[in-house]
Amino acid sequence: VAKVGRYVKMTAREGMRDELAAALLRAADGLAGTPGCELYVINASPTDPSAVWVTEIWASQATVDASLAAIDREDIATVLALLAAPPERIDTLPLGGKGLAL
Amino acid sequence: VAKVGRYVKMTAREGMRDELAAALLRAADGLAGTPGCELYVINASPTDPSAVWVTEIWASQATVDASLAAIDREDIATVLALLAAPPERIDTLPLGGKGLAL
Repeated sequence: VAKVGRYVKMTAREGMRDELAAALLRAADGLAGTPGCELYVINASPTDPSAVWVTEIWASQATVDASLAAIDREDIATVLALLAAPPERIDTLPLGGKGLAL
Repeated sequence: VAKVGRYVKMTAREGMRDELAAALLRAADGLAGTPGCELYVINASPTDPSAVWVTEIWASQATVDASLAAIDREDIATVLALLAAPPERIDTLPLGGKGLAL
């Protein structure tokens, strides 16, 4: 089964970057026990003061799909309300390397 | 100390994507014991058949700098010879989340 990787760029409304990062960190806490969620790291951007990047690795597409039902609705609503634009996503296919679960 | 994150896009010369991925996986093996290298995952792109993404997380900028001296020169030369263009890099500042070393 192929793993699923994603880099998701979220652009916050003016002055709301820290609130957006905090909301995403709370969402990450909610994924602590989610099967198949191998990496869900929240990052600031050193070059774009309104951007937050989320680095994700999942065990399979099926676990990504299943997680959508598990994520707290309120967390999603909070994140969406803080966005200035739709998220931009770069999809990746993790092949191997250091720090990847087998 | 701030962690350092990077998404590095490498574009292979025509037909050389798999060779590029293999060379980067070998470089990742060489980082197994490198202090501060917390994540070094090699990914194919599902949308660009010539692209390989490397997802990196390091404990600090100092560990990134120190690693440059540790990486095998031959691995670097092999990777560079397979590239059709200079690598493109997106820098990130990891804040927290699931799967990040403390």
